Amino acid sequence: MKNFIAIFSMFCMTLSMYASKVDTLLVHSDAMNKTVKNVIITPDSYSAKGKAFPVVYMLHGAGGNHAAWLGKAPDIKAYADLYQVILVCPDGDKTSWYFDSPVDDSMKYETYISKELVSKIDKTYNTVADSKHRAITGYSMGGHGALYLTFKHQDVWGAVASMSGGVDIRPFPRNWDLEKRLGSYASNKDNWEENTVINMVHLLDGKNLKILFDCGVDDFFYDANVRLHKKMMERNIPHDYIERPGGHTNTYWSNSIKYQMVFFNDFFKSAK
Amino acid sequence: MKNFIAIFSMFCMTLSMYASKVDTLLVHSDAMNKTVKNVIITPDSYSAKGKAFPVVYMLHGAGGNHAAWLGKAPDIKAYADLYQVILVCPDGDKTSWYFDSPVDDSMKYETYISKELVSKIDKTYNTVADSKHRAITGYSMGGHGALYLTFKHQDVWGAVASMSGGVDIRPFPRNWDLEKRLGSYASNKDNWEENTVINMVHLLDGKNLKILFDCGVDDFFYDANVRLHKKMMERNIPHDYIERPGGHTNTYWSNSIKYQMVFFNDFFKSAK
Amino acid sequence: MKNFIAIFSMFCMTLSMYASKVDTLLVHSDAMNKTVKNVIITPDSYSAKGKAFPVVYMLHGAGGNHAAWLGKAPDIKAYADLYQVILVCPDGDKTSWYFDSPVDDSMKYETYISKELVSKIDKTYNTVADSKHRAITGYSMGGHGALYLTFKHQDVWGAVASMSGGVDIRPFPRNWDLEKRLGSYASNKDNWEENTVINMVHLLDGKNLKILFDCGVDDFFYDANVRLHKKMMERNIPHDYIERPGGHTNTYWSNSIKYQMVFFNDFFKSAK
Amino acid sequence: MKNFIAIFSMFCMTLSMYASKVDTLLVHSDAMNKTVKNVIITPDSYSAKGKAFPVVYMLHGAGGNHAAWLGKAPDIKAYADLYQVILVCPDGDKTSWYFDSPVDDSMKYETYISKELVSKIDKTYNTVADSKHRAITGYSMGGHGALYLTFKHQDVWGAVASMSGGVDIRPFPRNWDLEKRLGSYASNKDNWEENTVINMVHLLDGKNLKILFDCGVDDFFYDANVRLHKKMMERNIPHDYIERPGGHTNTYWSNSIKYQMVFFNDFFKSAK
Repeated sequence: MKNFIAIFSMFCMTLSMYASKVDTLLVHSDAMNKTVKNVIITPDSYSAKGKAFPVVYMLHGAGGNHAAWLGKAPDIKAYADLYQVILVCPDGDKTSWYFDSPVDDSMKYETYISKELVSKIDKTYNTVADSKHRAITGYSMGGHGALYLTFKHQDVWGAVASMSGGVDIRPFPRNWDLEKRLGSYASNKDNWEENTVINMVHLLDGKNLKILFDCGVDDFFYDANVRLHKKMMERNIPHDYIERPGGHTNTYWSNSIKYQMVFFNDFFKSAK
Repeated sequence: MKNFIAIFSMFCMTLSMYASKVDTLLVHSDAMNKTVKNVIITPDSYSAKGKAFPVVYMLHGAGGNHAAWLGKAPDIKAYADLYQVILVCPDGDKTSWYFDSPVDDSMKYETYISKELVSKIDKTYNTVADSKHRAITGYSMGGHGALYLTFKHQDVWGAVASMSGGVDIRPFPRNWDLEKRLGSYASNKDNWEENTVINMVHLLDGKNLKILFDCGVDDFFYDANVRLHKKMMERNIPHDYIERPGGHTNTYWSNSIKYQMVFFNDFFKSAK
Repeated sequence: MKNFIAIFSMFCMTLSMYASKVDTLLVHSDAMNKTVKNVIITPDSYSAKGKAFPVVYMLHGAGGNHAAWLGKAPDIKAYADLYQVILVCPDGDKTSWYFDSPVDDSMKYETYISKELVSKIDKTYNTVADSKHRAITGYSMGGHGALYLTFKHQDVWGAVASMSGGVDIRPFPRNWDLEKRLGSYASNKDNWEENTVINMVHLLDGKNLKILFDCGVDDFFYDANVRLHKKMMERNIPHDYIERPGGHTNTYWSNSIKYQMVFFNDFFKSAK
Repeated sequence: MKNFIAIFSMFCMTLSMYASKVDTLLVHSDAMNKTVKNVIITPDSYSAKGKAFPVVYMLHGAGGNHAAWLGKAPDIKAYADLYQVILVCPDGDKTSWYFDSPVDDSMKYETYISKELVSKIDKTYNTVADSKHRAITGYSMGGHGALYLTFKHQDVWGAVASMSGGVDIRPFPRNWDLEKRLGSYASNKDNWEENTVINMVHLLDGKNLKILFDCGVDDFFYDANVRLHKKMMERNIPHDYIERPGGHTNTYWSNSIKYQMVFFNDFFKSAK
């Protein structure tokens, strides 16, 4: 609780002077040879020289871009202040699925997010540059992305959350450009089987990554999340799992992120 | 978000002067003809004449008393400030199970909590005295109690949470004095069947009560909570449901209450 | 197959003269002391003096009336000819649920359908007046009704089908006037528990009644039908069970009835 | 319904002159360098010059031959008339499993059925020679065959049904000459994994193929069919699914085909 009091005291002292600040950062991806936009939200008390901050990356869903999170859940600016974290919302292309696509060399968002962007953020901002102070979440395609990237890069990420995540892509062989990223399911079965989150649980050891995922019971991804929960239970992978009323909507996500920020805050505090 | 800012501003202005205050209130129960102790935590900004406050009642588990919550999760004092709520922790006897016992006239904790105590609190403190600003939670026996009381008194309570709740008592016919409260299961089957939470879902209409319950996957009450979730799903009763790593421990409860306070805060805010 | 050939021959000979005929029959219910409308469809070859015909009763869903089936699936007129059966579509009030309501004496549709109407039809038309030539189906509330009436009156009915049936009413305590028929679920639990089809499987012995039920996988009654199937499997009650694409729609029902008529035709033929 | 009336009218006019006709057609398979027998049933109204007809191919089970269907379900001759379709029952060897065997060059029944036979039928008979008017079904080994061929050749087949299909062959590593077709499971695991229907769902996109499969609840293939249904549900592949009383018997199949013909008839009609 001392942490809370300390945060609030700092917050109070600084409130009259400034509050969380929103920037757009352009980052060049060498892997894709293009420049990608990212929304960066720094907390009120942020300064380049003082205390270093943990970072939460926030991935958008299909059709979105770097500005999607701010549009859907503008309260995240306040959470940056409340929990004293930097928020990073990258552009994941409309439908990159955050893959390094095995069939399209121009799509390398796994490399972009987990390597290029993280490196750039740690150089540009006053961050605590280790996995114990770096977390990632996302909704829908972004929930898939957050789990996908953390399962594969546990040295980079210490905590992950997903809301309404597309944790099994195989039920949707014709949706959201998945065929452009992986080839058709019919002809490229292995690409799909190996890159759908629900088949990647074997990468986890139950120790290195703190995991939360949630889904609305009316969501078309609900069944897949139930199955992922069941699989993780069978494999003894500790994780927080939440079901709530609601569907695949902004209302659901702007509620879910409140709880996920509590989860990340605890994670960051536990590292101290 | 304005609510948060308003809360924080108020908090900041008052922080130097006082913080949440802990009292012990003695309340006479006419039903039981005895005096019961209750811990009352008022937020920092509390005053008898200003803004009225919502109230969260917090029930302890078997073996506990009115001081149990403060001992297990001292951070609740800070939550009173953060969310600007009054917290009420009644003594529920070591093993009352919050019943009006059908076999022991001296045990009338359902009446005590849902009628006598609520009435006394609303007279004694500056509360918003309606169900939209009155919530209740509890751990273990207290989780059972919170669900039990709210299912039966939906006019009194607007929101409920349970952590590690004993939501089905039938698997434990010899534990925690349950036989003293309901008679033996063998000889008093109806008492047990009618007073176990999992058999009371028919009292809900899916509209009047906001519900959250959670349980650790290593808890001996885990299976009962899974079954309650399944039953509520089958009955179309909207509710938040959370499973987490952990067992029947203080560590679990001091974590769980953080999320439940977010839930209650949203409930109180939605009434405005 | 000889039956088919015989049917077709008869059909051919009579086609130029007449086809199925639609009447509206008024039937007085002594139990309810009112007159109820019923659509009656007799096949092309029908005559009061020749061969007697089997009868299929068809129950409508909530909000419907005696004309609902003809509106939703006009092809049933052709099925009367193809399978040489009389079709009877009673008015079941908008939301009688085909109960003899325990809380409203004016609603006695169980008695009306299974006793008064059956008796009147057998007196008025040239029917084979036994349970081996009497079947019943319905959609939605009518699916519930068909199963409900046959489970309770196996001497009257020999075969039953349900499409998109409300086979468990407990998930919907506030819908479709169910409270007016049974009292509120909260206060009249037994009325609900004893009159929901899924709790009436114990009435079946697996021999006297031929059963088919189906549901669309996107229907809000899907889960209840899955559970009824599972329960019947556990209880060794032989039945045909079908899941199909589709929701709670006319499109689904006008398709489903095609298969149910094959089922009923086989049932009637097997009696010979 | 107009279709029905039209069919019946035509049927009536022609009934006295002829009914469905049964031929045995010898087809040379270049792939296997041998001649294969096939039963062909043309409907009563068939003529080489008039209206073209849709075709339903019907595969037999292990131990059967081209005459098996006629023996087990002689009513199919009447269905040819009732639904105005041509029926083709090829000889699939006693235990070809309709594979192009990876271990025996002389067995190429996938090629024979889906290419050579289809081509020959369309040249020999007055068919509508496209996938919207070409369907296939089978029982037991033939149910496996129908699903296997259609999953792999969606350009050739528009609709498929299976009854009591061997949709997972892995539980039966020593039965029905499967080892002769694929090599032993122990030594040729990939042959089995890649050629069992339940592992081929990824070939489907939920759009190109209309699917029905059914199984008796006492059948030794029941569990495999339940699992295939569950897998297709998880993968969002629309399909009709039926469970019925009964085992692996002629009685079951002669009943099932009645419903499958309704299904195919609807499919052919929907193309118009």
